[in-house]
Amino acid sequence: MAILQPVLLSGGSGTRLWPLSREAYPKQFLPLVGDATMLQATWQRVAALTDAAPIVVAGEDHRFLVAEQLRQIGAPTPAILLEPVGRNTAPAIAAAALQAMANGEDPLLLVLPSDHVVRDEAAFQTAVRAAMPAAADGMLVTFGIVPTAAETGFGYIQAAPGDGVRPVVRFVEKPDAATAQAYLQAGGYYWNSGMFLLRASRYLDELQRFRPDIVATVRAAFAAASRDGDFIRLDKAAFAACPSDSIDYAVMEKTDAAGVLPVEIGWNDVGSWAALWEVSEQDTDGNAHHGDVIAIDSRNSYAYARRLVALVGVEDLVVVETDDAVLVARKDKVQQVKDVVARLKADARTQAVLHREVHRPWGSYDSVDMGDGFQVKRIKVKPGARLSLQSHARRAEHWVVVRGIARVTRDNDVFDLYPNQSTYIPIGAKHRLENPGHEPLELIEVQSGDYLGEDDIVRYEDVYGRS
Amino acid sequence: MAILQPVLLSGGSGTRLWPLSREAYPKQFLPLVGDATMLQATWQRVAALTDAAPIVVAGEDHRFLVAEQLRQIGAPTPAILLEPVGRNTAPAIAAAALQAMANGEDPLLLVLPSDHVVRDEAAFQTAVRAAMPAAADGMLVTFGIVPTAAETGFGYIQAAPGDGVRPVVRFVEKPDAATAQAYLQAGGYYWNSGMFLLRASRYLDELQRFRPDIVATVRAAFAAASRDGDFIRLDKAAFAACPSDSIDYAVMEKTDAAGVLPVEIGWNDVGSWAALWEVSEQDTDGNAHHGDVIAIDSRNSYAYARRLVALVGVEDLVVVETDDAVLVARKDKVQQVKDVVARLKADARTQAVLHREVHRPWGSYDSVDMGDGFQVKRIKVKPGARLSLQSHARRAEHWVVVRGIARVTRDNDVFDLYPNQSTYIPIGAKHRLENPGHEPLELIEVQSGDYLGEDDIVRYEDVYGRS
Repeated sequence: MAILQPVLLSGGSGTRLWPLSREAYPKQFLPLVGDATMLQATWQRVAALTDAAPIVVAGEDHRFLVAEQLRQIGAPTPAILLEPVGRNTAPAIAAAALQAMANGEDPLLLVLPSDHVVRDEAAFQTAVRAAMPAAADGMLVTFGIVPTAAETGFGYIQAAPGDGVRPVVRFVEKPDAATAQAYLQAGGYYWNSGMFLLRASRYLDELQRFRPDIVATVRAAFAAASRDGDFIRLDKAAFAACPSDSIDYAVMEKTDAAGVLPVEIGWNDVGSWAALWEVSEQDTDGNAHHGDVIAIDSRNSYAYARRLVALVGVEDLVVVETDDAVLVARKDKVQQVKDVVARLKADARTQAVLHREVHRPWGSYDSVDMGDGFQVKRIKVKPGARLSLQSHARRAEHWVVVRGIARVTRDNDVFDLYPNQSTYIPIGAKHRLENPGHEPLELIEVQSGDYLGEDDIVRYEDVYGRS
Repeated sequence: MAILQPVLLSGGSGTRLWPLSREAYPKQFLPLVGDATMLQATWQRVAALTDAAPIVVAGEDHRFLVAEQLRQIGAPTPAILLEPVGRNTAPAIAAAALQAMANGEDPLLLVLPSDHVVRDEAAFQTAVRAAMPAAADGMLVTFGIVPTAAETGFGYIQAAPGDGVRPVVRFVEKPDAATAQAYLQAGGYYWNSGMFLLRASRYLDELQRFRPDIVATVRAAFAAASRDGDFIRLDKAAFAACPSDSIDYAVMEKTDAAGVLPVEIGWNDVGSWAALWEVSEQDTDGNAHHGDVIAIDSRNSYAYARRLVALVGVEDLVVVETDDAVLVARKDKVQQVKDVVARLKADARTQAVLHREVHRPWGSYDSVDMGDGFQVKRIKVKPGARLSLQSHARRAEHWVVVRGIARVTRDNDVFDLYPNQSTYIPIGAKHRLENPGHEPLELIEVQSGDYLGEDDIVRYEDVYGRS
């Protein structure tokens, strides 16, 4: 049997779950259901099937999140293919196929979005194993979800009669309600899950047949890729020239080798807050709560709380409370959440893109308080990590260590600070912060000055290539 | 004409507007409509009528708020009568009457709750002037609000036919909907606003007639009161022995001297979030917003935002977002907000009583961040104010001044810190913070230690009498 090569697609920017999901930290990196993030859960359900390290296709901005989250759960070191720009799934999977074949193998690619929920892992694993022979024989297998409702938000796949993997009759776009109802009653129609099992070479061959332009540009981008540790950066100019297309349009709807395996695996694409409510555990009133929530006389609602959220007399609502934004939406109108994000973007507001806690390769910072001429940040630095050697023209900084060890460079001095020790970085001083210890470093930074923007920084040296 | 003596009742604890209103900082101290707080607005609408300084009846815990808020708007220095326990309006007004008569005068008391909205100040002032002759002649005048709806949440006053101040036929309890509708159609029924105009001696005489027990205990509490600057502390034991009763029950419903002046003054008692929505300016969709709110496809809702609140597809909702709690309630169920507060109290949670920003006689502190073994506070100290000389057994403190001047006492040293300077208070060190300057002092305090509770404090000396 051929090697099974997981390919995790992590390209989503996830505005539909705003304010929890932000462009800089989208849905796949959040623990929306359970303790693991959705990316981690995606790997965990695959790990039982193969010893191969995953190939992850992700955006440049998310590279450290991918690496860190997979490291946290002890996944084998992945190959992380970085897209300089998003070009949809057909090019992404082509790049993954090239990477998978780079050492002369021709494995079966198990292509999985990294932001879906699969409740029944065993059924999922059984399904993958069941699809492997057909895929090994050259079929391009998609997993079709047995519908449980007349859902109008998904595309459908009509399957030929039969058992196991069977030929696809046709792909159909998102139907209207009546058509969806007819599909549900007729049977033989399945939700298009975006999960595939296909031999790497077969995919590239079929893509070559229908979209040689995509194959050519992806080959060029892959050939000119630069490697940086586990990161494989597709060449920017070449990849930018690649047309954007989905695997469905580019290959699956055109090839005569398309197969579908109907599955019942507790799948949910968590494509909206309403979907998240559906997959979350609900109490007897139909409420699903995350965090500190008090519900009085309330039903069928979803609430996500960082602090305290009190619901009084409400029904069919979604309430999501984060450090810097609160969403209150009717559950049947949650598709309009994207309009909020669009408006925030139009106004160039940070809440569209960033969380209040901002992640960096070395750790994170969170602006916990701000006032006239000052700002307070909580800064976390990972063990062994170091920030760039930098200076600021218009602000001074006070650092108070509250956990771990800080190695401080301040002009010509280098010294270590332990919990409850502090130091002062004057305006203009060249300074660097690093964590020489084995546990996380946390410190409180009080900035003062007449301008406190992130862009008041001169970087002299940076281990993450940002100077 | 007799002197007009304003008496502002500030006894409310305001749980119905939680989470904005908290026991330690209730509704009358908040700027719910406009820039002034409701107490300030109450004074401002009276100021045009009289040169007399107000008498304020308030709870012990609110004394600095009353003094500070009236000082801010340049009100003449008030006499602040402090109730050691709440005993409802009959005793409170009796104490105010004694205070008003203390120097031999017998003024007309204009008794006003300090947490109502009056939109038409001119009409209010005209009404007060119109009621003065009747009150001077010995009538106990109440202001009856001409009803604009069949409201079931208020008591009603039936007036005798006539013009101006006329005799009260009867007081009626909150009616059911049909009765309220009948009152509205019949005319001659007015909402009981809780505002009164009555000669001090007349009120005490009538109270003596019907409730001599109340007069006796209030006289005792007033005679034994201790004076502390502008504060007049009613004697605790004596006042605690006073029966609790309202002026309506104790006097107005029994006396034959009750009069009512119907008024149309844009009155609202702001007794709930729904009432606040009613008196707030609404956009064409019927939404009333305070702060940073984005509303998409939403109607007839009230939103109060400290950060960003986004409403999507909602109707008839109240959304209130504060530093440590978010309320989402149906507008017609807001009476149940008190159930949330009751549950928080039962669980001894601070959100029932305190805001995240806690007010103290010397200023305020706000816990802006907290983590394992540390806490960050923003501390504000008023000009000339000083905290107690104190020490902590289990925490050290770092102070970074961001505004104003800090005079620091640390064991045997006393020194001044200016913006961008910092100091360190070790565990156990006797220390004091004061603001010797003319502008507010702000500093960031980083506490570290294994226990960070407010009760880890030994006070050696305190100008506010707390040591």
